[in-house]
Amino acid sequence: MSLLVVGSVAYDGIETPFGKTDRILGGSATYISLTSSYFTDDVNLVGVVGKDFAEEDIELFKSKQINLKGLQVDNSGNTFFWKGKYHYDLNNRDTLDTQLNVFEHFDPVIPELYRDAKYIALGNIEPSLQGKVLEQVNNPALVVMDTMNFWIEGTPDALKKTLKSVDLLVINDSEARELADEPNLIKAANKVMEMGPESLIIKKGEHGALLFAGGDIFSAPAYPVIDIFDPTGAGDTFMGGLLGWIAYTDDLSTENLRRAVIMGSVMASFCVEKFGPERLKNLTEKEIFDRYRDFRALSQIPEIS
Amino acid sequence: MSLLVVGSVAYDGIETPFGKTDRILGGSATYISLTSSYFTDDVNLVGVVGKDFAEEDIELFKSKQINLKGLQVDNSGNTFFWKGKYHYDLNNRDTLDTQLNVFEHFDPVIPELYRDAKYIALGNIEPSLQGKVLEQVNNPALVVMDTMNFWIEGTPDALKKTLKSVDLLVINDSEARELADEPNLIKAANKVMEMGPESLIIKKGEHGALLFAGGDIFSAPAYPVIDIFDPTGAGDTFMGGLLGWIAYTDDLSTENLRRAVIMGSVMASFCVEKFGPERLKNLTEKEIFDRYRDFRALSQIPEIS
Repeated sequence: MSLLVVGSVAYDGIETPFGKTDRILGGSATYISLTSSYFTDDVNLVGVVGKDFAEEDIELFKSKQINLKGLQVDNSGNTFFWKGKYHYDLNNRDTLDTQLNVFEHFDPVIPELYRDAKYIALGNIEPSLQGKVLEQVNNPALVVMDTMNFWIEGTPDALKKTLKSVDLLVINDSEARELADEPNLIKAANKVMEMGPESLIIKKGEHGALLFAGGDIFSAPAYPVIDIFDPTGAGDTFMGGLLGWIAYTDDLSTENLRRAVIMGSVMASFCVEKFGPERLKNLTEKEIFDRYRDFRALSQIPEIS
Repeated sequence: MSLLVVGSVAYDGIETPFGKTDRILGGSATYISLTSSYFTDDVNLVGVVGKDFAEEDIELFKSKQINLKGLQVDNSGNTFFWKGKYHYDLNNRDTLDTQLNVFEHFDPVIPELYRDAKYIALGNIEPSLQGKVLEQVNNPALVVMDTMNFWIEGTPDALKKTLKSVDLLVINDSEARELADEPNLIKAANKVMEMGPESLIIKKGEHGALLFAGGDIFSAPAYPVIDIFDPTGAGDTFMGGLLGWIAYTDDLSTENLRRAVIMGSVMASFCVEKFGPERLKNLTEKEIFDRYRDFRALSQIPEIS
């Protein structure tokens, strides 16, 4: 089923305790699209890049059958650039440079052909832009949105307005607590869902994720990754695995949402193994399904007789 | 099978955002004994109390068939007293008062009758005292030990010496990181197990627990408790449920250790619902097994076809 992906396409400069790269493909729409392309051939990307965007990166998207009709090329400037450095424990990072470039005036225009998309992934961009996307689409079955503390603090009104039209929100635990102004995560989840989203996923990094859907709570484990090389894009990759699986199965049951959360976790666990989206370029079906089984084994609670 | 429990028996003064009590039964050996008594009638407590120890608390232990031959009554002073206040988010607390009293000179003498105990729970006390217990026992099948950052920082040599004789260490995530001097939790776990314990449980509070045993990793979810009333004793209660289950089943397979971790989590999830050990006084078998099933449902990952 068709998946519309709206978000940033960028270049990142990344330094981790294990290595450094001056310029690598990045952005939320990039990670979501690349990841979901493992599950469906109907991925439709909407974003903007500048005059410096490399032909090889266009080719990468094309090689994954990602539709680029909605990828605007703005020759008035360069592609969005972000540079950051991770601390020793990889849980914190400093932003060293942010150049919005052509992304500053990004106006997400959804091509006519994409407006009937069944599933919509709103990558982490300004909430009013996310809202603008939703005004242009016709009756999607599921709208999934990501956001961050920058918008929770900076544009709370626009965020809350957009949230009313979102079905499933994906945020991390500190964002959930901040958005709800509530330290207890379960209470915070309930407060966030009162703002609009019927379902909610709270990502907890090394502690896994929680899914709240249909009155049910699902606790997903984290994969015990010993060598996290670069956490960049892990959250977007999670969203890509989640929505890729949903688009592939076309099944919104609570049970299948659990599978989708694990598939998101599977893909994110691969992402962090190498720089940027490197690891997402050549995964095999076997690797993906084997790791899904690893997740099952990891959290299997034996019955008691 | 017989379980030997060594640790503190105390009175606590507790203040949480939801209430306050000036004096309630506490201490690691108290929580471990009360909890494990739900699973076995062969719980043998070793500890010390002072002249102020209430008859009704002795009666509570007796009502749970806990053997008190190893509970020394030292009439030269009062029972160990601790007073603390939890912060708004319940994750942090300030110690307002610590009166060691008769606990200051506690010398754990293991009664002859207890020395063949098959399972041993070393509650969080000075590592050299924990070591002294192990010198007095004969070939236990499993020695489980708890410790805390106070000993990791204060008596690292004694701790490391005792760790060599321990089979299963139970600590929280920040303690594991500190003990191993390693931020990655999986790497930290491996380093800690190189110090002696063949198996390790890392408690992560609201994020559940990890079990490392027999080359296997098990990720246990946390029960989504909306109303945590008082976290005091939750870690000791976890250990009580864990060892109670092991003593009851007399099965040290990796699969059964998973059940034991969930049983520890089940009991801890009850503990935090009321002040101190209140909730542990009158649980029913049905409540316990129902919650075990809740844990299974919470983390069930559906197969993919």
